Amino acid sequence: MSEAPEARYLLALNAGSSSLKFAVYGANTLECVVRGKFGRLGQGDASFKVEGRSVEPVGVADHAHAVAWLFDWLDREIGPDAIVAIGHRIVHGGPQYRDHCVIDAAFLAELQRIIDYAPEHLPAEIAMITFCQRRDPGLQQVACLDTAFHRSMPLVAKQLPIPRWYAKQGIERYGFHGLSYAFVLQQLDRIAPQLAQGRVVLAHLGNGVSLAAVQDGHSVDTTMGFTPAAGVPMGTRTGDIDPGLVRYLAQTQGIDAAAFDHMVNHESGLLGMSETSADVRDLLAAEPGDSRAVEALALFCYRIRQAIGSLAATLGGIDALVFTGGIGENAGLIRERICDELGFLGIALDTASNQANAAIISTAAARVPVHVIPTDEEAVIAATVATLLKQETLAS
Amino acid sequence: MSEAPEARYLLALNAGSSSLKFAVYGANTLECVVRGKFGRLGQGDASFKVEGRSVEPVGVADHAHAVAWLFDWLDREIGPDAIVAIGHRIVHGGPQYRDHCVIDAAFLAELQRIIDYAPEHLPAEIAMITFCQRRDPGLQQVACLDTAFHRSMPLVAKQLPIPRWYAKQGIERYGFHGLSYAFVLQQLDRIAPQLAQGRVVLAHLGNGVSLAAVQDGHSVDTTMGFTPAAGVPMGTRTGDIDPGLVRYLAQTQGIDAAAFDHMVNHESGLLGMSETSADVRDLLAAEPGDSRAVEALALFCYRIRQAIGSLAATLGGIDALVFTGGIGENAGLIRERICDELGFLGIALDTASNQANAAIISTAAARVPVHVIPTDEEAVIAATVATLLKQETLAS
Repeated sequence: MSEAPEARYLLALNAGSSSLKFAVYGANTLECVVRGKFGRLGQGDASFKVEGRSVEPVGVADHAHAVAWLFDWLDREIGPDAIVAIGHRIVHGGPQYRDHCVIDAAFLAELQRIIDYAPEHLPAEIAMITFCQRRDPGLQQVACLDTAFHRSMPLVAKQLPIPRWYAKQGIERYGFHGLSYAFVLQQLDRIAPQLAQGRVVLAHLGNGVSLAAVQDGHSVDTTMGFTPAAGVPMGTRTGDIDPGLVRYLAQTQGIDAAAFDHMVNHESGLLGMSETSADVRDLLAAEPGDSRAVEALALFCYRIRQAIGSLAATLGGIDALVFTGGIGENAGLIRERICDELGFLGIALDTASNQANAAIISTAAARVPVHVIPTDEEAVIAATVATLLKQETLAS
Repeated sequence: MSEAPEARYLLALNAGSSSLKFAVYGANTLECVVRGKFGRLGQGDASFKVEGRSVEPVGVADHAHAVAWLFDWLDREIGPDAIVAIGHRIVHGGPQYRDHCVIDAAFLAELQRIIDYAPEHLPAEIAMITFCQRRDPGLQQVACLDTAFHRSMPLVAKQLPIPRWYAKQGIERYGFHGLSYAFVLQQLDRIAPQLAQGRVVLAHLGNGVSLAAVQDGHSVDTTMGFTPAAGVPMGTRTGDIDPGLVRYLAQTQGIDAAAFDHMVNHESGLLGMSETSADVRDLLAAEPGDSRAVEALALFCYRIRQAIGSLAATLGGIDALVFTGGIGENAGLIRERICDELGFLGIALDTASNQANAAIISTAAARVPVHVIPTDEEAVIAATVATLLKQETLAS
């Protein structure tokens, strides 16, 4: 790590289903001093990687255990008890918590209540919060909700066409990837403030894939819904699906709700179609000899292209398109295939800029600028912590 | 009925889940001589209505029983044994039968095999075919597949992002409303042949709702999929849905696959959201005093609008939009709300023409003409029967 001039730091924790990203920021400067990632958590062979250093195996079992290990490591790296506040990315705030907030007992109880909203993410997130509370009861913790960005969506985008009874129980479309969208939109606002206030489609293409329609700086619709399995096909998820498949698969293959859930979350998308990999890089490499890889990528790009058309209909046309996320930032060929046929929206990519992952990849003549903006969810977490705790811990 | 100059007729049968439309055509002229409908089949109070006459109650229990009753009625109306061939609308042809065909034992066996593909429609269709065979073994019967129109869809539109194993079993996107689309496209071809060969979005808005993208006269994608529950919200169906809901509803409400299937097919869409009616006319009338009706119609129009944007992305822009089906042909306010915000596609409705359900409802200046074309599935059935049996029954 760099020789930070201050002794007070914020810790951003960003948990995936089997990973945990972290980043440490100066509490006043909000400059990142060290960041890294635990991988393969819960799979018996967890790894730890600090940016700029090599991967090392670590003997941690799960997310909470990884946080314990991380605290010890940070005590050595940046000094003992230098972390004064923690921000957690929380996948789902449910119907009660629509915005980022300081974590208290009521919030934790609500997360526990809605645990079935996101059973693959919330248990680990609750465990991490609880561990940090026990380790240092005075530590301030902040929840940064992946759903918060979409709280501005109009009713028509939040409602599901199911019996109204369910909506009263909180079953509605929430949307996800909110921290990423917030960061990218903020960056767009710096680069091109007029565009950021216009009609923008944001495409977050990573392990999870979603797109959002933004108007006047506010989310007006997004492809994910009540859960992150909704929307377009992803690495291992189906996205929205024909509901008639549920009965058919139950009746003919004996697939129950648990097996169906596993299938649509872990065995589908690029992995299910290719039968080899959920990773776009693997599939691009396999294309020359494997029609399954070709078909998997074709469907992936095609349904994302349709989603852009669909969100353009939401917005009444678009003024800018932004790619982000691991695939969105790095896979020029995928961006090219997605944008193919989108000339009617005013989109045209410049081949060389696109191949180079340039900041702007549209042609000079195109009506709609297309940007590539690397996302940074941890930066949003740190900024949110700083904002929410300004009059509290940080001022002490 | 009119005094038909010929004694040989074709009978078109078009079964819904609780209804049966029929139409009788001169075998050579293909002119319709009488048409009508059984309603509320299987509900204990079936009705019979001949076009131009009043409704009468009939004591028929189910679809096959209705056909028996119809044969007796036709014996009196058009003369005994005047029907020489029958065409059936068949909802699903499955993976083996991609096009309309003369019904034989192999076809019937295949329908029986794929009965789980469409358990709400196929049993009644099989029963009607079997009844007709028994009544008159010499009668030629033709299957007119609702899926046939979409057999031209490219692989990318047929594939589902689920494990490839399932595709090998025939689980793919088939699409429906094919007879309606075929009729409407044929009509468009008469009115504006250049448009019919261009990039067209066809919107069939009735009890079931689907949209199709057509290029060079061929279907290239459609919103329904493996089952007619897919796509956009409908009268009582959800359309495509967040697959994560399956686990959540099973875990928290004990909803199994059968209950889920009932919910997404019969309790959702306009009915589920409004809690009062699946009928657009009822909801339009209820809007002034009932926010649930407002919200139900708003979501209905919004998701259809998005589907048009999505199919425009498939086609790379559109040259014409066509509305058909009960709602598409008659509900000007719904068409207006759907087309709202679609100016970026070149769509602009003329208020007066739209309110009048005119044949062309776009403004003279609009780049994309918008047509209203009343559908006639029975006409397609009759024409298909005549084509397929030309060298057989009809020539005898």
